[in-house]
This record gives sequence, C-alpha cells and structure tokens, in this order.
Amino acid sequence: LGEFKLIEHLTNSFSVYNKENTIKAIGDDCAVTQYSKNKQQVITTDMLVEGVHFNIMYTPLKHLGYKAITVNLSDVCAMNAKPLQVLVSIAVSSKYTLEALEELYLGIRMACQKYNIDLIGGDTTTAPSGLTISITCIGEANKEKIVYRNTAQEKDLICVTGDLGAAYLGLQILERERVVFLANPNHKPDLDNYQYVIERQLKPEPRLDVIKRLEILGIVPTSMIDVSDGLSSEVIHLCKQSKLGAKIYEEKLPIDTESYHVAEEFDITTTTAVLNGGEDYELLFTIKQSDFDIIKEEKDIHIIGYMLEENAGVYLADKNNHLFELKAQGWTAFKSE
Amino acid sequence: LGEFKLIEHLTNSFSVYNKENTIKAIGDDCAVTQYSKNKQQVITTDMLVEGVHFNIMYTPLKHLGYKAITVNLSDVCAMNAKPLQVLVSIAVSSKYTLEALEELYLGIRMACQKYNIDLIGGDTTTAPSGLTISITCIGEANKEKIVYRNTAQEKDLICVTGDLGAAYLGLQILERERVVFLANPNHKPDLDNYQYVIERQLKPEPRLDVIKRLEILGIVPTSMIDVSDGLSSEVIHLCKQSKLGAKIYEEKLPIDTESYHVAEEFDITTTTAVLNGGEDYELLFTIKQSDFDIIKEEKDIHIIGYMLEENAGVYLADKNNHLFELKAQGWTAFKSE
Repeated sequence: LGEFKLIEHLTNSFSVYNKENTIKAIGDDCAVTQYSKNKQQVITTDMLVEGVHFNIMYTPLKHLGYKAITVNLSDVCAMNAKPLQVLVSIAVSSKYTLEALEELYLGIRMACQKYNIDLIGGDTTTAPSGLTISITCIGEANKEKIVYRNTAQEKDLICVTGDLGAAYLGLQILERERVVFLANPNHKPDLDNYQYVIERQLKPEPRLDVIKRLEILGIVPTSMIDVSDGLSSEVIHLCKQSKLGAKIYEEKLPIDTESYHVAEEFDITTTTAVLNGGEDYELLFTIKQSDFDIIKEEKDIHIIGYMLEENAGVYLADKNNHLFELKAQGWTAFKSE
Repeated sequence: LGEFKLIEHLTNSFSVYNKENTIKAIGDDCAVTQYSKNKQQVITTDMLVEGVHFNIMYTPLKHLGYKAITVNLSDVCAMNAKPLQVLVSIAVSSKYTLEALEELYLGIRMACQKYNIDLIGGDTTTAPSGLTISITCIGEANKEKIVYRNTAQEKDLICVTGDLGAAYLGLQILERERVVFLANPNHKPDLDNYQYVIERQLKPEPRLDVIKRLEILGIVPTSMIDVSDGLSSEVIHLCKQSKLGAKIYEEKLPIDTESYHVAEEFDITTTTAVLNGGEDYELLFTIKQSDFDIIKEEKDIHIIGYMLEENAGVYLADKNNHLFELKAQGWTAFKSE
C-alpha cells in the first residue's frame, strides 16, 4: 500500500463525534475545525519512541495505541478542558506488518470511541528502525474554567485523584517477566496477582470523569497538572510555577492494596513508587480551603497536603512528622537519609 | 540538561507574534489558544525522519529546522489560510550535541520570525538512533475563504505558482556530491552553478505571498493543494477528489533556466523532474475561467491547463498534442512509451 492508501485503510473506520467542531477530518492539506465562540482551545503534543517510552516485547500494540491517545487526553484534562480531536503521526520500520499497524490503530480507535474524540489528521511514514508515534490533542473550555499550573495560592489544599505508584510497579513486573522470558522462552508467566498494576501501566485512563465531577460540584481548581512523572516532580512544578512551597503527608498518599504487595516483592517502599514512579495519569490540583466541605466526601479525590509560602520549601512529612525535601529530579533526599 | 531545562533552553528566545491568538505558549500541560469569532481553523501535521526525509550529511541543521516549519506552513497556505502557530516535537539520539539542537532550533526560529509564527508547544525526547521531527501547524481563515481539494469545477483553469522540478534536481546534485565526498573526503565541491536548485531543496518557502496576492486580487481558488509529491500526483489528487479529469500542457510547465542545465547533466527531462520530483512547495490551484483576465498578468502564477469531465481522464499534452496519461504513483506511463 502507498502512503495515502495506508492512511485511508487505517483510518476509514473512525467516526466523527464532534460534528460542530470537526468540519473536515483527514483527506485534505489540513483538517478544518471550528470552536465555540466563547471558548478557548488547549493543545498538547507528545512523542512516544520505541525502546524509550515502550518496549514492544510486553506492550500489545492495541494497548500502545490506546495509551498514546489517553496520555494526551490526560494533558487536556489537566487544563480542566474537554478533549475533542487528535492528530496521529507514525514513523515505522518495515519490521511492522500491516496487521501490526491495524492493531495499533484499533487501540487508537477504541480510545477515540470511549472518549468521543475525532481523529482529524496525521502522517504515516517509514523509518529506518523502530516505531515512533507523535500525537497532538486539542480540547476546549470556557476561558474562566481553564486551569493553569501557576495560579495556586498559599494555604490551598493539595488534592490528587485515584491512587498512585501502581503504573510504575506494573512496569517492574513486566520488566521482570521480560528478563525471565529471555532466559527461558517456555516460561508461562502467572500474572494473576498483578492485574491491577499491569493494567495501570499498559492502559491508563484520563480522568475526564473527575473533570466532569468537578464541574458538577462547581469547583474550579486553583491550579492543576497531571501526574505523569511521579508525584514529587509534579508537586514541585505547581510550587515553582505558583511561586509557593508545599507540604504533603506520606500517610495521606492514596495507594492500592495490590501496590503494597508488589512494592514489598521488589523491596521498595510504596512512597518511592508514588513520588518517583510516574505514568499514573491522575490529576494533582489545588483548591481553596473553602471548598474543603465539598471535596471531603468525594471517594476518588484525596487531600494530601497544602500550599505554603514560597520560602517554606517543598516537603513530605512522614507519620512522625519528620520532613523530607522533595527534589525535582526525583526523591534523592529521602533515599540518602 | 533535563528534558524541561532543554526545552526551555531551546525555546526561550522565541517571540509571540499573535498575542490575540496565543494565550499561553510553552510551559503548562497544554498551550492555550483563542481564535477569531468568525473564522475556522486549519491544522496539519508532518513527520520528518532522518535517513528517509533528510540526510544529515548534506542538510545543515539550521536549514532542516527552517524547512520543517516551512513545509507545514505550505500546507496551511494550500487551504488559503494564514498560519499562526506551530508545535515542534523531536526525538533525538545522543549523537546530536546540544550545539546541534541549537542549530536546529535556530532554523525553526528563523522560519517563525520570517512568517510571524508562534511556537506554542512540543516535546523533546531521546531516541535510540537518528533524529525524528514532528511538526503540527495551525492557521485560520474566514470560513468562505477556505479552499479544499474537492471543489474544482469542469472547465476551471489549472494554475501553478513559481517554478517546478528544481528541488528534485537540487537533491540529485547533493546526492552526487555525497557519493563523491565519500570516495574522496578532500574533494571540494564547486556548487556555484547549482545554487538555485540546491536552495530550492534545502530551503523551500511557503507561498504565503501568493495567498496574500490572491486576497488582494479578490480571487478565491475553486480548489487548491500544495506541490509536495510532484505535479503529477497533485493534479491527480485534485481530479480524484473533485471527481473530474484534467489536461495540462507540457510547454506551459514553469521551469527555471538552471533546472534545464541540471536536468541535462543528469540526462533526464525537466518534465520528469516536474511531474515526479516533488518538494517544490508551490501551490497548485484551479480558478473559474471568468478570473482569467485577473490572473493572466501575474508573473508568478502560470496557467498550465484546465479541468475536464470525470471520464475524460488526466493527461499531459506535449507540444505535438500527444497525450500521456498521468499516473498516481508517478509518471510511469510516459516513461514506458
């Protein structure tokens, strides 16, 4: 198949869900879009490289396609916006068959279907080696609803959704199985006890449900970011950009039971997995203290600390209220003490 | 440098030219944009892969960065729209130094400066090998001014801007010099006679000037596409999507004098270079016959043929009016006759 036929073949079963916003999808020099009068648009782009962001040995291509979309939707959610459209480019070596690319696009389509996203463009090209995926995602929101990283206020409560650390632990399981498999290709992995953490690694979901819930609750966070690089790094981002300090509490960190078991197996603390692990794609945000009563009953939103004045630093407090400074490049201070 | 510091380092000298459209550029989960009430947006994305789309041996990184932007601007021009913003992602192996990336971004910045384009986002990641660049470009235009590929009418005149075939011929020169250099690294190339065709290959410009000129002339093309894959392929695109045939005239094809000389050196016809060469980034468009009088005086716009009914086929006529069918995959029919 030539490039045009290939794109057509891979994308012809995609639906347009946002007809008022997507005037023309794939098939011209550009896609054509139109947005609501009083809204602003948000746009994000991400590149996923084989051997850096994913290992094809334990990443089913369907999951990879799905995840490539959902991690970008997560960035749109982190602006408190509604994702509408994606563009997907791939550079792919000849080791990938047409069937492999169909699997990849099946995953992309499943994510688009689940979240009503229109595929409006892309590029398909050969590469000397590997697979590189580039995704661009566009969303929109009312101007006054868009939430930035640099607008937290002192004393705001720090909230995080879902649970943290599981995706990182899932990756440890997959890496361990890969090594075992390389030594003994007949090895049949028993992954029953690791289903949750593996799913968190392979099939993350954007917290669009939380964005909708916040709207229902009438809450606009004072700042927000998604947790892709580990909680530590994200808290520091909010602090730096808002020119504030923060204190978070170790015992408040939301962690799934399975994560505790897996962390134990690998002889690491769940706190390490939470702070430095990454790929959780949960939302980290701050709210005014006056919103505490509304948030406190929400099962899936956890208050883990609060913002401090700039000079106060960025700390984790353990249950004995010992303070450990969070570091931008990970959690080195804690490890060395 | 970490990823965040690297992005900041590479992008901190970029300016925002479209302040009413670019609310927030790089630095949050997403860029935030806002467009004019009565306008629609156009969006395109392109992936450039080392060893497929460019050879680093004879492509200065500054030119590569410049070209990566301008070829996307060309797609926006092909919709008769005004480009406003780009997002730039790169996946890069460790063989590239920081200085090399600075060169690349210098070229990107020069293109952004020249055409008043805002860099609003991107991603920077490591790759196991090579350099992959992914660009997304956004523009806007009044709804009634946006020009598609599928709206040409029978008897419309086919126009093309500038001259064609030179970029392909420039590539032949560069490839020849590469082979000579590999055999003898002390060889000093004398490229004085090839400056135009080499510049067309390394530093293409989007025809934003033509878009502005058409606006002044009060002409909205009936269909348009940019010439990136060779004239033959693009004429066929317009015909297929508009469900029409076409006839173009060999003697009307605009060709630079230098191109004739270079084609002769390589023992190919300029017509082959024009039809199958590609990377000209000129605009191919159709206009109503009633616009003929307005267009005919334009030095840089050439009428090369006209649209026919669907069943008439897509043909090139030579000066003896012999007809050769144009083929989608290149100009195979002509070659075999």
